Amino acid sequence: MNLLQEKTNQAIEILKEKNVDLWLTFVAETSVMRDPAMDYIFGDGGLTWPSALIFTRSGERIAIVGRYETEAVERGGLYSTVLGYDKSIRPLLTSTLERVAPRTIAINTSRDSVHADGLTHGGYLNLLDLLEGTDFANRLVSAEEIISALRGRKTLEEQGRIRKAVQLTDEIFEEAFQFIRAGMTEIEVAEHMQALVKSRGLELAWPAEACPAVNFGPESPVGHSGPTGIKLQPGHTLHFDFGVKYEGYCSDIQRMAYLLRPGETSAPTEVQKGFDTIYRANELCRKAMKPGVTGNSIDIIARKTVTDAGYPEYMHALGHQLGRLAHDGGALLGPLWEKYGNLPNLPLEVGQVFTLEPGLDVPGYGHVSLEEDVVVTEHGTEYLATPQTELRLLG
Amino acid sequence: MNLLQEKTNQAIEILKEKNVDLWLTFVAETSVMRDPAMDYIFGDGGLTWPSALIFTRSGERIAIVGRYETEAVERGGLYSTVLGYDKSIRPLLTSTLERVAPRTIAINTSRDSVHADGLTHGGYLNLLDLLEGTDFANRLVSAEEIISALRGRKTLEEQGRIRKAVQLTDEIFEEAFQFIRAGMTEIEVAEHMQALVKSRGLELAWPAEACPAVNFGPESPVGHSGPTGIKLQPGHTLHFDFGVKYEGYCSDIQRMAYLLRPGETSAPTEVQKGFDTIYRANELCRKAMKPGVTGNSIDIIARKTVTDAGYPEYMHALGHQLGRLAHDGGALLGPLWEKYGNLPNLPLEVGQVFTLEPGLDVPGYGHVSLEEDVVVTEHGTEYLATPQTELRLLG
Repeated sequence: MNLLQEKTNQAIEILKEKNVDLWLTFVAETSVMRDPAMDYIFGDGGLTWPSALIFTRSGERIAIVGRYETEAVERGGLYSTVLGYDKSIRPLLTSTLERVAPRTIAINTSRDSVHADGLTHGGYLNLLDLLEGTDFANRLVSAEEIISALRGRKTLEEQGRIRKAVQLTDEIFEEAFQFIRAGMTEIEVAEHMQALVKSRGLELAWPAEACPAVNFGPESPVGHSGPTGIKLQPGHTLHFDFGVKYEGYCSDIQRMAYLLRPGETSAPTEVQKGFDTIYRANELCRKAMKPGVTGNSIDIIARKTVTDAGYPEYMHALGHQLGRLAHDGGALLGPLWEKYGNLPNLPLEVGQVFTLEPGLDVPGYGHVSLEEDVVVTEHGTEYLATPQTELRLLG
Repeated sequence: MNLLQEKTNQAIEILKEKNVDLWLTFVAETSVMRDPAMDYIFGDGGLTWPSALIFTRSGERIAIVGRYETEAVERGGLYSTVLGYDKSIRPLLTSTLERVAPRTIAINTSRDSVHADGLTHGGYLNLLDLLEGTDFANRLVSAEEIISALRGRKTLEEQGRIRKAVQLTDEIFEEAFQFIRAGMTEIEVAEHMQALVKSRGLELAWPAEACPAVNFGPESPVGHSGPTGIKLQPGHTLHFDFGVKYEGYCSDIQRMAYLLRPGETSAPTEVQKGFDTIYRANELCRKAMKPGVTGNSIDIIARKTVTDAGYPEYMHALGHQLGRLAHDGGALLGPLWEKYGNLPNLPLEVGQVFTLEPGLDVPGYGHVSLEEDVVVTEHGTEYLATPQTELRLLG
């Protein structure tokens, strides 16, 4: 069974669990705006004209697409019923809904999770128009729970791909640390790492402008800004945020080092304290993470660890899910800030993969942050690779 | 001046022309769903948290983004004002709107044009929530006209890139026709063409599953289905639908040939008649196309040419625009079918690039269709490359 078959079977199980009769992914011109759910229920190809991808709780899989695309959809093998139309999807869509007679129709719209928000506003209005004169518009519900479960609950195959991406990321970090010398710019090192990704036939996990993010010393801008012309000097912290995509699944890892000054054999106390604080925060969180606790309860632990150690609060979430995207959907390890919506209140589930990435600045030396990738299991939470437990010293 | 500067300047001119005070592109997590307008007003990078990209008729360019992304946006150089926030975009968004005091706010939502429908339904609801307690929600209008003009009216630089893509496509077609032998499968030929694309460092214009589409003989499924294991035999028409992307801009070309049977020195009359009909339809349309006429009026010409010659009506539009996407936005050369919405009623404008691609089947021989790429000028419409005027004979 391939991954798409596995995930579509899982989707039907989730419909049963969530008590939803029918899940409707309504799309058009997916080369322009591609509903992210399509990666799980359709695969690589696209759809041109208004199309309906339907899964029912009773196990039906129905695709209604433009006539010129029925052949490709049939060949994909995911849909047992493929219906083609010429001028308007209306008759086939309404007759299919009338036949299935769902009490609830889940559509891909969500205020909180962009991953479950693949329906455009214009597409939503078109759908309402198509349902006019029927009672179906009154049965629409958000597919957020379905999509979050489908994306979040990684199968063993999906976990294996992420593990492999994490392992390859570790390897590239090792090679990069061998390459780095005082005087190199952030851009030089970033380009070297990108070349290592390319030579392995991999893709970057997010846009090349900031993958990797590289920060040398206290003047480097932290965040999603890309690497700069700042040169590495003794007394700088080195900080990297980097990930690759392996067979469609992402890693997202931050690593740290310190470049010793002449005469130093260890990092200054302030830098070491920063590193230890971040490491401790991550480890406390990993131990506290388990199915059923909310992401916010975990975020609080890391945030408090950092502020209790005397550092200012970092102004981002502790961690996000990882999957086909570096920022993947559903539950978030985050604070209750408006921009995060309800996501930090969702409970963790088995099979979800999260990043842990608190951060702080050590004045005069630079940014300190580690990012580890972990998976939630039935009994707790495990690192997907060996975490960084000691500050790497370069000299 | 680079292309993004050119297009953002053009956007402000279009706001003046369309009498719109402010254009607001409201996005979040663009790695998940990327508003297609971003290619014109932002560039390659992404935005993570709810973000507002604002252009005003008076020439202001304002980006409101998460704090960790201000640096990258400033570096992009397209926005004269870059505002960063931590917890919620609300205060900066409303204070900016209050300062600019627009009478109309264009947002990226459209029922007809997916290219102008980059705002998700959840994003739309979030925007309404952010505007609650102000009068701004009552001033929202669709940015469809703005986006269609911006995408459609190609600058000389954009036209040059499409011309180059078309020229490279022609070259690859020539090499492919040299390569083709009787007995080869559609898949073999498609893979060879994809290798030629790769060896030139180009990308395909649409997903690889059906780029190129290859049809040998009467049994091959026509449309967006990919190539099959059908083998080329004498007496088959050969039909290809193929395009490449050059510096972000697409070509989309269909070419035809016929494989002679033993003893034949020309194509059978039926095949030749089919070819001549399609060629004539395209040439009649090209001559009729000019600024101000509707796409539907052109579609009617081709459709009538084909049906008057005794063929069944093809069940797709005559042609679409071409640009950053193979199916690009706004005015369409199409029939008035529900799935096309209002797009066939829009008037053609100078600088728009269209495909012309009527089609027909010759029973017993196969599919016959040509696709030419043309640009609308002040005085008429020109081919972007030499059109195929004669049926190529292989033997």
